[in-house]
Amino acid sequence: MGKALIIGAGGVASVAIHKCCQNPEVFEEICIASRTVSKCEAIKNKLAGGRTKIHTAQLDADNTDMVIDLIKSFRPDIVMNLALPYQDLSIMDACLATGVDYVDTANYEPPDTPKFEYKWQWAYREKYKQAGITGLLGSGFDPGVTGVFCAYAQKHYFDEIHYIDIVDANAGDHGYPFATNFNPEINIREVTAKGRYFDNGAWIETAPLSVKKVYDLPEIGPKNIYLMYHEELESLAIHIKGIKRIRFWMTFSDNYLNHLRVLQNVGMTSIEPIDFEGHSIIPLQFLKAVLPDPASLGPRTKGKTNIGCIIQGLKDGKPRTYYVYNVCVHEECYAEVGSQAISYTTGVPAMIGAMLTLKGIWKKPGVFNVEEFDPDPFMEALNQYGLPWQEDFSPTLLD
Amino acid sequence: MGKALIIGAGGVASVAIHKCCQNPEVFEEICIASRTVSKCEAIKNKLAGGRTKIHTAQLDADNTDMVIDLIKSFRPDIVMNLALPYQDLSIMDACLATGVDYVDTANYEPPDTPKFEYKWQWAYREKYKQAGITGLLGSGFDPGVTGVFCAYAQKHYFDEIHYIDIVDANAGDHGYPFATNFNPEINIREVTAKGRYFDNGAWIETAPLSVKKVYDLPEIGPKNIYLMYHEELESLAIHIKGIKRIRFWMTFSDNYLNHLRVLQNVGMTSIEPIDFEGHSIIPLQFLKAVLPDPASLGPRTKGKTNIGCIIQGLKDGKPRTYYVYNVCVHEECYAEVGSQAISYTTGVPAMIGAMLTLKGIWKKPGVFNVEEFDPDPFMEALNQYGLPWQEDFSPTLLD
Repeated sequence: MGKALIIGAGGVASVAIHKCCQNPEVFEEICIASRTVSKCEAIKNKLAGGRTKIHTAQLDADNTDMVIDLIKSFRPDIVMNLALPYQDLSIMDACLATGVDYVDTANYEPPDTPKFEYKWQWAYREKYKQAGITGLLGSGFDPGVTGVFCAYAQKHYFDEIHYIDIVDANAGDHGYPFATNFNPEINIREVTAKGRYFDNGAWIETAPLSVKKVYDLPEIGPKNIYLMYHEELESLAIHIKGIKRIRFWMTFSDNYLNHLRVLQNVGMTSIEPIDFEGHSIIPLQFLKAVLPDPASLGPRTKGKTNIGCIIQGLKDGKPRTYYVYNVCVHEECYAEVGSQAISYTTGVPAMIGAMLTLKGIWKKPGVFNVEEFDPDPFMEALNQYGLPWQEDFSPTLLD
Repeated sequence: MGKALIIGAGGVASVAIHKCCQNPEVFEEICIASRTVSKCEAIKNKLAGGRTKIHTAQLDADNTDMVIDLIKSFRPDIVMNLALPYQDLSIMDACLATGVDYVDTANYEPPDTPKFEYKWQWAYREKYKQAGITGLLGSGFDPGVTGVFCAYAQKHYFDEIHYIDIVDANAGDHGYPFATNFNPEINIREVTAKGRYFDNGAWIETAPLSVKKVYDLPEIGPKNIYLMYHEELESLAIHIKGIKRIRFWMTFSDNYLNHLRVLQNVGMTSIEPIDFEGHSIIPLQFLKAVLPDPASLGPRTKGKTNIGCIIQGLKDGKPRTYYVYNVCVHEECYAEVGSQAISYTTGVPAMIGAMLTLKGIWKKPGVFNVEEFDPDPFMEALNQYGLPWQEDFSPTLLD
């Protein structure tokens, strides 16, 4: 059916590429492009012999001209941006210049003042519309599947949705006393950021990790969940008409928070270089070197993730509650594609979003969030491609 | 009266030197010797203008010949070893070669396999006796004052001592989330070492920090205390005749232990070098560089220490209990001598031990621990030189 240019060769990209190759009728040809071409080659070598034809390319995605050149030579039908969110705009510009559809999994952040906000990407709406191309934003899990879940609830079960609580739980255990899935800097930013939620037309800020509840998650059990800001709140607060309150919750174990706090206390998370034995060294960089390599966690991680939406509203004038969620098993993901559930839950929806665009099902001129399209084909594809979802019509509610 | 060669120019040495200068009738002339002569000069400059005449010298105390040469040129009446315990034997050898009395505050440890044990220094007993010189071991606070407390109890209050519990509490607060008074390596060794105590003729080992009680200390209040091994247990188990059980307890706050454990968990306390940006770096050394400089703690530390001995036994056939302790205030020590209580409580008894030897009161040929001398003049000097002690004849006992 088509050709996809996939930018990025990390964990999420690797999962998405595996999934594209499971779907060769749609992804006949792909090109994996990254700053480090050897990483692209490594993925290609793992998947060689399948029906999807795989190319690789060296690419600095910050450089729009270089992206344009690659698009012109490979001539993809869609560009899948699975690299850093700092490069969203340079890649969107290249798609605009060449008239190619675009999909990503996380919103643009300015590299110097990282901030979750859609305004920079939403500014492309009119230009994409004029150019007749589709820009699909945030087609990962959260954002991504969480927005599709909300749209699905809206379409099938509710006349009005009033309350949404998105709960993201990772109960995986890698067996180390402490390790981070990503860059520890991002983990630290997460737990030190203010919480924020939408309530009756206003955004309410909360002190970092100050709002904590216990929620008993299906297949995982009771966990501490903390109110956080998360980027899909911004678009869902607009696109779910009549919404009164939407919040996002994430699990952190006491052990994880304790380790992060101690490391912060002693100065090991600082990004201010110190002079050590004549070398200028950033403590956080040294900490990363001492901690287990995130890449080593995959084969060790056991247990499950559970991410879903607890929704309250009205149907036919009566109150209704609905919980839709996916449970993903780290070790099963690793066995299937060589990555654990954190990358898997993001990479699979990226493939699905690209597939629906390629097939013309989720294709219209402009820039869109996932909840603006028909959720049904996406929900069906989740069941088909490894992220089956479950429903509960009388869940415990968060007050 | 005499001349003292003082080896060392750290916190403890600085306190002892201040105290010598408060006592110029006894310490007419001193020489401060250290590897880094600028540290000696700095102490000298602070104390210039007093009646004690101060000299300085550069010295590598590991080198017995160099110590001998310095003794021969300065001609002291006593050598006060306030440097690292790794140098005890090289300095004792130099005293033996030159016929000069010796005093220290901590027992010798082999640098490669550090271990608290008196055997290496007790091996000098006969040689010192033959040479007609005095070696006074462990004249700090613990060991030191704790041994004098026990000897004083034995002399005045008991026919038989059956149980001794030494309790060392530091309730000082430096205002940092975490910092170490000394080298963090020594702190880590302390909390990861097995506990050990003497019970009915045998030494009992306990897992690190596995025996914990709460004790309500005078002027400090209730604290978690942990059973540890400490070097004075070895000599007191021998010198307090008829002793059935002797234990040592130290306070650690939950916060302190938590920080040390996390740093250990993530590998920051490791002494195995790692390769970082082309440099070989020892994580523990880097941690030291990130933590507050121990020297910066002095002016910030508020609060008290309380170190003492809880003693049970018989007098005139009746059970008797006795608690003797010193309370020291960090900020008062700093105001007086520019060091907080940790150095103060060790430096003052070092001066007192040297003073009693110089005066001929604690002088006899051989090598001795403090509890082998008459405790009364030492107890009197503690009151006079800043470490007044208090007694309680009905203390709470540790079971």
